[in-house]
Amino acid sequence: MIVILKQNAPQQKVDELYELIRSKGLDIHTVEGEQDTVLGLIGDTFQLDIERLNQLDIVSAVRRISEPYKLVNRKFHNENSVITVENTAVGDGKFAVIAGPCSVETEEQIIEVAKRVKAAGATMLRGGAFKPRTSPYAFRGLKAEGIELLLEAKKATGLPIVTELTSLSHIDLFNDVDVIQVGARNMQNFDMLLELGKCDKTILLKRGLSSTIQEWLMSAEYIAAGGNNNIILCERGIRTYETATRNTLDISCVPVLKEKTHLPVIVDPSHATGYSSLVRPMSKAAVVAGADGLMIEVHNHPEKALCDGAQSVTPDQFDEIMADVKRLCQSEGR
Amino acid sequence: MIVILKQNAPQQKVDELYELIRSKGLDIHTVEGEQDTVLGLIGDTFQLDIERLNQLDIVSAVRRISEPYKLVNRKFHNENSVITVENTAVGDGKFAVIAGPCSVETEEQIIEVAKRVKAAGATMLRGGAFKPRTSPYAFRGLKAEGIELLLEAKKATGLPIVTELTSLSHIDLFNDVDVIQVGARNMQNFDMLLELGKCDKTILLKRGLSSTIQEWLMSAEYIAAGGNNNIILCERGIRTYETATRNTLDISCVPVLKEKTHLPVIVDPSHATGYSSLVRPMSKAAVVAGADGLMIEVHNHPEKALCDGAQSVTPDQFDEIMADVKRLCQSEGR
Amino acid sequence: MIVILKQNAPQQKVDELYELIRSKGLDIHTVEGEQDTVLGLIGDTFQLDIERLNQLDIVSAVRRISEPYKLVNRKFHNENSVITVENTAVGDGKFAVIAGPCSVETEEQIIEVAKRVKAAGATMLRGGAFKPRTSPYAFRGLKAEGIELLLEAKKATGLPIVTELTSLSHIDLFNDVDVIQVGARNMQNFDMLLELGKCDKTILLKRGLSSTIQEWLMSAEYIAAGGNNNIILCERGIRTYETATRNTLDISCVPVLKEKTHLPVIVDPSHATGYSSLVRPMSKAAVVAGADGLMIEVHNHPEKALCDGAQSVTPDQFDEIMADVKRLCQSEGR
Amino acid sequence: MIVILKQNAPQQKVDELYELIRSKGLDIHTVEGEQDTVLGLIGDTFQLDIERLNQLDIVSAVRRISEPYKLVNRKFHNENSVITVENTAVGDGKFAVIAGPCSVETEEQIIEVAKRVKAAGATMLRGGAFKPRTSPYAFRGLKAEGIELLLEAKKATGLPIVTELTSLSHIDLFNDVDVIQVGARNMQNFDMLLELGKCDKTILLKRGLSSTIQEWLMSAEYIAAGGNNNIILCERGIRTYETATRNTLDISCVPVLKEKTHLPVIVDPSHATGYSSLVRPMSKAAVVAGADGLMIEVHNHPEKALCDGAQSVTPDQFDEIMADVKRLCQSEGR
Repeated sequence: MIVILKQNAPQQKVDELYELIRSKGLDIHTVEGEQDTVLGLIGDTFQLDIERLNQLDIVSAVRRISEPYKLVNRKFHNENSVITVENTAVGDGKFAVIAGPCSVETEEQIIEVAKRVKAAGATMLRGGAFKPRTSPYAFRGLKAEGIELLLEAKKATGLPIVTELTSLSHIDLFNDVDVIQVGARNMQNFDMLLELGKCDKTILLKRGLSSTIQEWLMSAEYIAAGGNNNIILCERGIRTYETATRNTLDISCVPVLKEKTHLPVIVDPSHATGYSSLVRPMSKAAVVAGADGLMIEVHNHPEKALCDGAQSVTPDQFDEIMADVKRLCQSEGR
Repeated sequence: MIVILKQNAPQQKVDELYELIRSKGLDIHTVEGEQDTVLGLIGDTFQLDIERLNQLDIVSAVRRISEPYKLVNRKFHNENSVITVENTAVGDGKFAVIAGPCSVETEEQIIEVAKRVKAAGATMLRGGAFKPRTSPYAFRGLKAEGIELLLEAKKATGLPIVTELTSLSHIDLFNDVDVIQVGARNMQNFDMLLELGKCDKTILLKRGLSSTIQEWLMSAEYIAAGGNNNIILCERGIRTYETATRNTLDISCVPVLKEKTHLPVIVDPSHATGYSSLVRPMSKAAVVAGADGLMIEVHNHPEKALCDGAQSVTPDQFDEIMADVKRLCQSEGR
Repeated sequence: MIVILKQNAPQQKVDELYELIRSKGLDIHTVEGEQDTVLGLIGDTFQLDIERLNQLDIVSAVRRISEPYKLVNRKFHNENSVITVENTAVGDGKFAVIAGPCSVETEEQIIEVAKRVKAAGATMLRGGAFKPRTSPYAFRGLKAEGIELLLEAKKATGLPIVTELTSLSHIDLFNDVDVIQVGARNMQNFDMLLELGKCDKTILLKRGLSSTIQEWLMSAEYIAAGGNNNIILCERGIRTYETATRNTLDISCVPVLKEKTHLPVIVDPSHATGYSSLVRPMSKAAVVAGADGLMIEVHNHPEKALCDGAQSVTPDQFDEIMADVKRLCQSEGR
Repeated sequence: MIVILKQNAPQQKVDELYELIRSKGLDIHTVEGEQDTVLGLIGDTFQLDIERLNQLDIVSAVRRISEPYKLVNRKFHNENSVITVENTAVGDGKFAVIAGPCSVETEEQIIEVAKRVKAAGATMLRGGAFKPRTSPYAFRGLKAEGIELLLEAKKATGLPIVTELTSLSHIDLFNDVDVIQVGARNMQNFDMLLELGKCDKTILLKRGLSSTIQEWLMSAEYIAAGGNNNIILCERGIRTYETATRNTLDISCVPVLKEKTHLPVIVDPSHATGYSSLVRPMSKAAVVAGADGLMIEVHNHPEKALCDGAQSVTPDQFDEIMADVKRLCQSEGR
């Protein structure tokens, strides 16, 4: 960590700062520049509160050199984490595909979709039982019944199921769920992250709508700090000024994350773009950019979907996407 | 609501759409353009799911004309809402100032700050008991003890207290809290909003880090739809590309909100800018832009604050800010 | 075009508006809603100034239905435009690769790089002679001499050359340049666009740092309106809040543009990401997302480059990228 | 400047780096951390190309400590710059108001507006003769004739005139113009900045639509580096995700700039918000935030304005704004 002092800082204040830093077990190397004095802090700065330093009168700026996350940092855990979910895995070099409807609606719907996506090569089934919706007047999911229906679909197809937890108060309903999704709006719901850190279920952590990659990794660190290392990161588009797409898919976050963390990374082109016609090219881009998998919305009757129909592909379109995905995986040797 | 059809939409599909819309009790006026056909939907479109229309093959675009919120909309409730909190009010034309430390730390600290801010003219005391922090390794507040200390400070000064709820699981501790703050990260925690809609406490709803004004009002609508109309909106800066400030204070949202809603609006210049030196000019700007109040971080020893010290002002600085605020309120005739 | 009137608009003002619209040769269909009145304008609204309507007291909002660009719009020109540059083409289904150093520095440098990128399969040579630099103290290119050296490299390799025009005052030096690049900062330099519309050279139009896709197409429309249809669009990353990459590559703009325009689209992963390690995965993503080509910075000694070395790949790395590109093009059947 | 080396950098490469840095006349202080080695560069780093260092294999990051601008930096020029324009000034503690129509349209229009804004207290007259417009089909200004009409209005009122230069090719027409405006789209038109640095006219430098404060100051540095110190900065809103306003007024940039530079700063609430109803509250906010002045669009018949009517206020509304501005200036003691 680098601390840059203001010009003409009174010596007494500087002495107090040195004392504070040393009281944390850190060493200090001082660089006297022509305009500024720079302190290099040496030792384990992970638990040092950067704000406390930044606030001091005599401090002009504080800059971290090492990242503020440790458990999810590739520097300290070089090989890729492989997350096993029932009979399948994410991060093992193969390509995982999670598919299914935005919302679970009926038994027929979810079972039909589950069979179709399994036949096409999906490795897990997704479906929303609890749906976060911007309007209080919109459909918010079948809740407990939705989870029941997902479990029926699992029984019928053998696909592990992924579904979103919108509030800790529902967690008892998630006992048989294979992967708990933390949605974009809960990426910094720290109480939820802490609680999920205590279980051993796989957590699919979606990126917040305007979260930096570093903030996202810090949220993963929360879960890992609780003892749960079963974490999959999911890019789902970020908010920008562009309105031609619902969000902007930050495809370059995939190789950036591959450098920074050992956790697997998947891409959700449905929410990232908001349009079914863009799902196929973005799925292909995700494969070759190095993602470990995809999460795709598939609905047997998108025009009747109770939410997010505009971005859902049909089972037939999903077949085509999977054909492309398989061809590209083969070309990539995975 | 306006629905724009794609060119060459098959007549059968168009007929189905007309039927769907009419089944919702809406009338349709059709405009045949040279390139496009446009449907004007007439009636109560509040509960119509815009996504369901957008997803149809034959639909090119759907545009709302009327806003998707009703209870918090000034169109349907023209006079300003006045929110009464104990012996004080927000939105009554006078200027409300909520002040206090980022975190409650000790009894001495909170009582000293409370006395100082009261003397300077603050109308409520703020202090964090539960703190959302980006890092799992940072201080997360005194929790229940923090609320106890706030209540001590209320006893000592008579100031109503404002503190943040980070999880519904803590809500039983908030019985004696006067104003429950919903932080930026929970602005779209819909389960929390629904629950808070059922109580009659005042809710201070901070704007999400990258939330549009419309999304913010939809979150207020969630609370109002539950039956609780005691809502104060708080602008606290939005995320942009600029890094010279922590966030970008969207000061123009104040008059925009005044046009769109009857709810009171306050400004938090501390979080919006991240620097104590910017709190004073931004507080002044908030007064003349028409805000109903301010929320300011004040710490008796910012350099020892356990969080966010960089943006806290000292009690002496707060005195100066309040002198400016009072002078400007007087000049503005309020 | 849709014009939404305010409630209670005085009839006389409404009549004046009708007259104004009809004086432009447009028909009006009126939809009377419960709250609002909506006018559908029918006819050629291309030259109608949307601002003039928006400003009227009685108008609540104006929404375009049809896009404001015509010549570059796929609706009016369905087949892909193929841009021929000397012995090569962009947009013909094959994959074009423009490669070379950020700045032209010496004859040895540019000729060595040109030979290497040609051998690897590049179809054009890029190199900056005039460099826009944020700091007045940075190297701004060899200028006229840089163009001379590019022409030497063309002679040595046969590769057509692409170089940036930063000011109309240099245009006489560009007579022998094959493709004139309009940089991100000049995307809305309308005087330059108008002038380039009058020549018949190919224009490589980079997207502005914070330009919407629609604004970008409007800038292309400027060139086309002057009579020059030889336009290639180049996505080079947009400005967002994320700082892990220099910009954010908006990869989904490729299929969006393919729907909206007939012009070819290429991707510049070097400027979009700012890091050489990200160029390879993003180049691959561009191929499968449907781009017509790439623009890549290659420098024989990136560590000695006079600008933007951090994002330049070496000729050896470029060989690897081209091997991937060729493999993926083959897999994609192009 | 701080250079952070990668772990396990080969000694030979490190030696070469030391040599390179020392060849620039700089000293190096080395801090060996547990994970990283940090070099502090001491001396005049202004002309060191940060990119050249960043690109080196062995370098993990480079961070500037001192700002990259010098001539416009308050550190090296503590007192405020006062820019004198004919019989008036900007930055002298008084409040400057530049007002007038978006476009000059007719002699009657510009003279009528000039008289009205002068009577209300404006200190300069603005009016566009060359208009940058997104669409090639929109009105682009009266050009030379527009400047003639502005000069007529100056003759009639004595107000100095401000008008935008969109291309260096028109500069000969600007001989009698008092203040040359560089628009947001030209903020990084470096050839234009260099040329304007050579004249002694006052330059009004608008902030680019997505420019950081640092980039903006670097553009001012360009002008100053050429020898022209007559620079006024103008905040005109930045591009964000919010669509309720045309842009987002970054009001906190005013006190930030006051810390960083000695140049005067004015605010343009018309372009920043895009709505005439927001001009008044934002003008008031600018006064108390510490701006040196305002730039406001005033049109005698906004509904007939040839551009940007939606954001223009009427002369009557301008009178009200000026009454508020004067009252607040008095309250602020200026």
